[in-house]
Amino acid sequence: MLTKGGCPKTALSIKDALEALEGRWKLLILFALSAGNKRFKQLSKEVPGITDKTLSKELKNLEANKLIQRTVHATFPPTVEYAITAHGKSLEKVMDELHYWGLTHRKEIIGK
Amino acid sequence: MLTKGGCPKTALSIKDALEALEGRWKLLILFALSAGNKRFKQLSKEVPGITDKTLSKELKNLEANKLIQRTVHATFPPTVEYAITAHGKSLEKVMDELHYWGLTHRKEIIGK
Repeated sequence: MLTKGGCPKTALSIKDALEALEGRWKLLILFALSAGNKRFKQLSKEVPGITDKTLSKELKNLEANKLIQRTVHATFPPTVEYAITAHGKSLEKVMDELHYWGLTHRKEIIGK
Repeated sequence: MLTKGGCPKTALSIKDALEALEGRWKLLILFALSAGNKRFKQLSKEVPGITDKTLSKELKNLEANKLIQRTVHATFPPTVEYAITAHGKSLEKVMDELHYWGLTHRKEIIGK
């Protein structure tokens, strides 16, 4: 088991990952985008509880980390669409494990 | 693949997990404890960059979420020790996946 021993190099890469994914929103936004490309308003509806200001900030951060791509289409008026990148998709296993653990945690703590 | 489709129920359990693990510190503390029981001062040294105030707050939160156990030993003066619980250990796979992804992310973004 990898995490036995508390190796400092493993801690460093876990820290990198946690910094890129910090907060409760980024993975939820990526999760929504994993179902298909979306516009800002769609994301705002599909990520429960997020404000437009926070969504805007998180989208910029996700783009800077190459986890999503923002495309401006040359329509009139211009339309903007967000898509998950291959690097963003590489988080799938992390999301899967978080999902399974979230289920256990709900049973353990919330009791339903 | 589980995360395809953006199912709301999956989003809920991911949200539960992210709320329990919110911030950059909790998993790093659990990671340090996965190597063995520790006292406050040891943790403070082993989790790079954490302040004592934050560590104290995070330990309380981890205890409330049943992820760690705090034991007071009847020595003189009393000594306090922190241990990871079985529920905390169940995060191992999440930590493994974060570790692997953190390595990829470092290559992709930080370039080293």
